[in-house]
Amino acid sequence: MTLTPERNAIPPFAISMGDPAGIGPEVVAKAWSVREAQGLSPFFVIGERRAIERIWDGPIATIATPDEARTHFSTALPCLQLDMGGEITPGEPNVDGAQCALHALEIGIGLAKSGAAGGLVTAPVGKTQLYSIGFTHPGQTEFIAERCGIARNNAVMMLAGPTLRVVPVTIHIPIRDVPDALSIDLIRTRALVTAKGLTRNFGIEQPRIAVAGLNPHAGESGNLGREEIDIIAPAIEALRADGLDITGPHSPDAMFHTPARRNYDAALCMYHDQALIPIKTLHFDDGVNMTLGLPIVRTSPDHGTAFGIAGKNIASPGAMIAAIRMAERAAYYRSIAPDSATETALD
Amino acid sequence: MTLTPERNAIPPFAISMGDPAGIGPEVVAKAWSVREAQGLSPFFVIGERRAIERIWDGPIATIATPDEARTHFSTALPCLQLDMGGEITPGEPNVDGAQCALHALEIGIGLAKSGAAGGLVTAPVGKTQLYSIGFTHPGQTEFIAERCGIARNNAVMMLAGPTLRVVPVTIHIPIRDVPDALSIDLIRTRALVTAKGLTRNFGIEQPRIAVAGLNPHAGESGNLGREEIDIIAPAIEALRADGLDITGPHSPDAMFHTPARRNYDAALCMYHDQALIPIKTLHFDDGVNMTLGLPIVRTSPDHGTAFGIAGKNIASPGAMIAAIRMAERAAYYRSIAPDSATETALD
Repeated sequence: MTLTPERNAIPPFAISMGDPAGIGPEVVAKAWSVREAQGLSPFFVIGERRAIERIWDGPIATIATPDEARTHFSTALPCLQLDMGGEITPGEPNVDGAQCALHALEIGIGLAKSGAAGGLVTAPVGKTQLYSIGFTHPGQTEFIAERCGIARNNAVMMLAGPTLRVVPVTIHIPIRDVPDALSIDLIRTRALVTAKGLTRNFGIEQPRIAVAGLNPHAGESGNLGREEIDIIAPAIEALRADGLDITGPHSPDAMFHTPARRNYDAALCMYHDQALIPIKTLHFDDGVNMTLGLPIVRTSPDHGTAFGIAGKNIASPGAMIAAIRMAERAAYYRSIAPDSATETALD
Repeated sequence: MTLTPERNAIPPFAISMGDPAGIGPEVVAKAWSVREAQGLSPFFVIGERRAIERIWDGPIATIATPDEARTHFSTALPCLQLDMGGEITPGEPNVDGAQCALHALEIGIGLAKSGAAGGLVTAPVGKTQLYSIGFTHPGQTEFIAERCGIARNNAVMMLAGPTLRVVPVTIHIPIRDVPDALSIDLIRTRALVTAKGLTRNFGIEQPRIAVAGLNPHAGESGNLGREEIDIIAPAIEALRADGLDITGPHSPDAMFHTPARRNYDAALCMYHDQALIPIKTLHFDDGVNMTLGLPIVRTSPDHGTAFGIAGKNIASPGAMIAAIRMAERAAYYRSIAPDSATETALD
């Protein structure tokens, strides 16, 4: 399928720069540099252009509205300029930079919600820095969900690479707390948002979901844990009754090799590393974090600020390019299925 | 390095057939069929030749001693025949087959211990069937350890593929029980056996071990769990004092992609799936289970009896061939470093 004919109908994509002292400015500039070879749709960055100028000597065009990005995109990196005070030094985050990152995120959400931007791609923020300025959300995803009026459990993190998509049911909690954090309701919510997200953002009409067990060998009939019997299998049964094409609980170690991955469109995993280990093993450099369940398209490269290498011109833009591309495709699929354009809250 | 000059010094390798109704007989016969193309050293199978005849019409030579395998190996699959009663039907395990599998294992251990066999490769057994005849060990590994006079914690399971080796610290227990099963002592024991095993069986003189954290992001300085701070880091410190080249605790999702894997010879993982997910994602068809810490060489293909496909001539011998090859190399490395030929018990 070609995206070309419909492209003009989709507004330029907003990229929030993230922490100006991280690798965000660098990977955005590098992504723009390869826009033609990669066939990228117009995008613009929201943030401090000084941060880009510190690490890149390419052309930057300051714009006042997202629309202007279309005009300038072929000759310069369009930048919706935020004037922050203070110093910008790659690798040395400060409070001004955190304010700038949060401001860029807030504006990006607003532009995507209003339809002025085709979607939002978020570059990485420094959580420690954000917390120091009073940010209280666990991460950007929860902040975006709140701004979009979506309950946290209905904004679902998916990690997606060229050959695998995973959704963790529980995320940033200790392994010790995982078993008691699982419930039939939580699994059901995540699976329903995942199924709908696969349709809206990836154009998969009948998505197939594979659910992992929690324990080794998926509990081996209860010998190695009962969560599969008490929680996961009943959740799958309920989801099947909801009409989902869903299988499991699968032995977690037997669902991520190449032939197994062909049997599903997304793997629903019980904890962070059950999802993150296989996706990062396979797609460390081109994994994309996409938030499902939002009214807007939101993607993010699956890496952090990498302060340690910021300013050294060695950061790879691969994940940023993949995140832009995934946002483009999601916006396209949403544009051709406008009936699903409004997110419905689940129960 | 070439193995050829020393080959004749190493006795033929013993393969215990495993459950005669599983895919063991098939993958052994198929491995023999490609012995020349694969350059395999002489080996012989211990078990019921009828099981092989049911699924293969190639030549079989009944032998009385391992030495005779050398004579016949080029023209027939050498078989140390065990006469079991009862029917043999692929895919339909029974009590006689379980007895045969256990008997073959026992003989294989004895031949390897005596030095009559260069090492032992075990084909898969049916645990349910073994339990029905009074077998009380969790698996073949623990049985072999006992017969070799090695304490269970000192017989360490390693899964090894062409680009990754992993050792799980805890194995067949529910995720819920993992955090409390970890201790400084257990991690230390596993790491010491692993380091020594890498030298003895893989010829790595200065093995590098990478230790995974337990929690997401390795606990994020205690925000996502304290086991890294309280248990894993102190164990690593103690092991460094022991002289090991060891790093960690690493974020579990950031240690298995290609560049990361180049930094270590084995990854020490905190639980079953943290080890098994990456190895099976990467090496589902050629992963080998090797037991470290034994006086004998012991490997095993990393798959089960697969009763469901037994007798259909569709089982891949890839993992069996890889297991034979890994046993060969381990025997070779042991033969050129005879001073390490006797295992010392730890503590």
